[in-house]
Amino acid sequence: MVEHSLEEVLHPQSVAVVGASDDGRGSQYFSTLIEFGFKGSVYPVNPKYSMVGNMKAYPTVKDIPGPVDFVISAAPAPQIPKIMQDCADKGVKGIHLFTARFSETGRQDAAELERQILRIAKNGGVRIIGPNCMGVYYPQMGISFQPHFPKESGSMALASQSGQAAGEIINKTAQRGGLFNKAISYGNAIDFNECDFLEYFGNDPEIKIIMMYIEGPKNGSRFFTLLREVTRKKPVVILKGGRGRSGTRAVSSHTASLAGSTEVWKTAISQSGAVSVSSVDELVDVAVTFYCLPPMTGKRVGVIAGAGGATVLAADQCEEAGLDVIPLPQSIREELKSQGIQIWDWINNPADFSISMGDNDFNAQQLLKSMAMHPDFDIIISTVMVPGMGGPPPNHPGGQGRPPDRPGMGGPPPNRPHGQGGPPWAFAMSLDEVVDQYKQINDYKPLLALIQDRSPDKDGINDPREEQRWKNTCELTVKFINLKIPYYPNIERAATAASKVIDYYRMLSKSAV
Amino acid sequence: MVEHSLEEVLHPQSVAVVGASDDGRGSQYFSTLIEFGFKGSVYPVNPKYSMVGNMKAYPTVKDIPGPVDFVISAAPAPQIPKIMQDCADKGVKGIHLFTARFSETGRQDAAELERQILRIAKNGGVRIIGPNCMGVYYPQMGISFQPHFPKESGSMALASQSGQAAGEIINKTAQRGGLFNKAISYGNAIDFNECDFLEYFGNDPEIKIIMMYIEGPKNGSRFFTLLREVTRKKPVVILKGGRGRSGTRAVSSHTASLAGSTEVWKTAISQSGAVSVSSVDELVDVAVTFYCLPPMTGKRVGVIAGAGGATVLAADQCEEAGLDVIPLPQSIREELKSQGIQIWDWINNPADFSISMGDNDFNAQQLLKSMAMHPDFDIIISTVMVPGMGGPPPNHPGGQGRPPDRPGMGGPPPNRPHGQGGPPWAFAMSLDEVVDQYKQINDYKPLLALIQDRSPDKDGINDPREEQRWKNTCELTVKFINLKIPYYPNIERAATAASKVIDYYRMLSKSAV
Repeated sequence: MVEHSLEEVLHPQSVAVVGASDDGRGSQYFSTLIEFGFKGSVYPVNPKYSMVGNMKAYPTVKDIPGPVDFVISAAPAPQIPKIMQDCADKGVKGIHLFTARFSETGRQDAAELERQILRIAKNGGVRIIGPNCMGVYYPQMGISFQPHFPKESGSMALASQSGQAAGEIINKTAQRGGLFNKAISYGNAIDFNECDFLEYFGNDPEIKIIMMYIEGPKNGSRFFTLLREVTRKKPVVILKGGRGRSGTRAVSSHTASLAGSTEVWKTAISQSGAVSVSSVDELVDVAVTFYCLPPMTGKRVGVIAGAGGATVLAADQCEEAGLDVIPLPQSIREELKSQGIQIWDWINNPADFSISMGDNDFNAQQLLKSMAMHPDFDIIISTVMVPGMGGPPPNHPGGQGRPPDRPGMGGPPPNRPHGQGGPPWAFAMSLDEVVDQYKQINDYKPLLALIQDRSPDKDGINDPREEQRWKNTCELTVKFINLKIPYYPNIERAATAASKVIDYYRMLSKSAV
Repeated sequence: MVEHSLEEVLHPQSVAVVGASDDGRGSQYFSTLIEFGFKGSVYPVNPKYSMVGNMKAYPTVKDIPGPVDFVISAAPAPQIPKIMQDCADKGVKGIHLFTARFSETGRQDAAELERQILRIAKNGGVRIIGPNCMGVYYPQMGISFQPHFPKESGSMALASQSGQAAGEIINKTAQRGGLFNKAISYGNAIDFNECDFLEYFGNDPEIKIIMMYIEGPKNGSRFFTLLREVTRKKPVVILKGGRGRSGTRAVSSHTASLAGSTEVWKTAISQSGAVSVSSVDELVDVAVTFYCLPPMTGKRVGVIAGAGGATVLAADQCEEAGLDVIPLPQSIREELKSQGIQIWDWINNPADFSISMGDNDFNAQQLLKSMAMHPDFDIIISTVMVPGMGGPPPNHPGGQGRPPDRPGMGGPPPNRPHGQGGPPWAFAMSLDEVVDQYKQINDYKPLLALIQDRSPDKDGINDPREEQRWKNTCELTVKFINLKIPYYPNIERAATAASKVIDYYRMLSKSAV
């Protein structure tokens, strides 16, 4: 039990959905409570119907015979003052106002309506989430605002001023293996605001990582004070919307917030010890990295990322993200030499596997493992080639990993120019074997995997090989998720996430001293 | 006919492939010449075979009865001095050395071998592309270094120091609709170097856009002088590999180049008027934008990119990329008002379509068209929802575009919070209808489309809807390519590409004054 005003609001024993129906569209909120198995009583409220689904519907909240703890309102804005008074009279503890068209419209009458609603709520002791928001996703309680969100609970939390962003973040995080304890879309934040959610999540022992999408804080100074406290306990990753002139304008007509100065924000977030990100993808990357990998403070990275030019660019991108791409330790070179590997003095970090084709005894797996076991390396980043189908399809960038057919003229194997080889084991192994190899790496050092998105192109329409590869990629990611190996579509995103996560743990260890 | 030493080398009437074979792996170079329909004579050279395919093989180049203009060598490094002398004796004009393991190994003997080969070539009048490179892709001539590259010719050119990068760039550009006139992977560049390729491409009237991947220029001062001239005639987009300490180290063991200072490079590229990019994806984005869109100098952008928070972030990302996200012109608002659109004074740029759900008369297509026709807008960026299948699959970020089921309580349609709507027409139309709508927009103003990559996830394995959506996405991109509408996986990449392309044309128009 967390001591916080949100604790009671988020643990209702009974919920009424005002505006529930079962016509063509039905009520998503109502049906989702049923689908998610909400344990308490659920009441549909709609003066137009006597029944919703197989349940009796009530004309107003006050007509419900038992107590009602929480109300979800999807009624139109002009009806809310009356509904709010009903809630106050009924002793409702909290209401989520999905209802929109208040101050965010920029209209005086709508803003006045919003103030009126807040007055009624305050007088009647009803707490508000919203208005103009998707509300609560709390799978353990059986509450969700989308029927397709995962029903499984995790250790992440999200507070998002945007319902769209909340949905995108929850879906993209789940797609990468991250599950939520609670996520709240809170819109115009006329009552509960970013400070309440941050404080509450900070105190909740089930929550390990906090994600936030904020357009304009209602109470900036309290927020940054809280942020400094909470980041000492768990990571907080913050995406700020409304950074420029046009974004600020968009924020005003989205959640009626004052976006504030970007520079002030960035400085304040960074000083507080929170992690600042600039896109939904980066927010998800960082959160998933926190979720999957153990605390880590070292930035020395071992990299296998493609061949030739890709190796060079991988080094650049890791370094630009703040990682330390150290030279291959001499002891690993000596180890390779003692194994009779001809190119022992040439192989480097990032390892370019196009140069290895003459050395059949040498493979990427072996080097990855040597790097993972070596004390000089803190983390490993590796491209994962999708196995199966005897190699990538002809017309896809992934296809560059395939060694070209090499002519022979007798004598030693012909030398190959750089840039033609991926990790040489990739296509000789089954999907499960590849996964097992990476599991071993991950047992030694935190591993970040690179698995390319399948960009749409013409071969996707008719080529069954391309289709199979897409399915294999999906299967591979699921197996990685089960092993808590995080994956990223490119090295820039992996390196940036790793560096920011490490910076957080470094900050923590410095504060602890 | 372009007057340049490369002109003769790249237009051979006969080609010999040293190391051709038809064993298990065969010779890719040899078979690709056949497959691409090279018009002249082709000779396999291999002392191990009397026949390769159904053609007579020769033990050495000198044994070939007719003249030989161009040689492709895949023989091991130690054999090259002898082969080079044979070429000189035979009167060969140019040789491409696929062969690697020269100075890039960091070994003295290998570097000396490289110098010896260059001496023999110079004395014998043989010009060299390479060594340690994939060589020439020139579809019009029937020459390619990968059998799966497009056989169709286009107006782009690429000079790449990396064979891997060349392959990745050609494939990714083709996937987005961009075709090449010539692409050359040139590796260690001991003879022909970046200056020769830039000068030659600059003078070639069939080439409209030049892409370059450079690790270390052999002649920096000549390169930047040339660059300044060529950029006045056509855009040059440059990706520099080896920007940091570790990248520089990687460059040295990749193509034995000196990477040089990043800052000097960036300044020099920008002063020359060329476009500088920092990843393969950005290189392709910018080149494809040049390829598809007409010259443009205005940065005022009209944006429809998702809803709610995505709208706010779209504004931020456009502005951060250097575009001008102007407010919606008052005349468009008045037009909406005169049509009876209830939210006429609330709709903005970027347009947030989640607020429109009460106004059934109002749709995104209408607004996009008004923006495209309005003189205040220079370009348009719009999210394209993939149509078909009755909406996106449940567990995908794209799925956020689907309006949730909305409860009704009689009276006016209930108000909706932001962030739940994509462009409302998306799922009501067929794929062809959607394409046609965008074609109309593109007729008025340069249009950049956002089509999300299909990230792999568990639903891809078994969900036929997800599979169908993936195929629909592929089909949509093909139709956009045919209309020369460029597409990007996210707004950050679209906005960055647009801004850099516009900067180029602005530079041109300033130089012209």
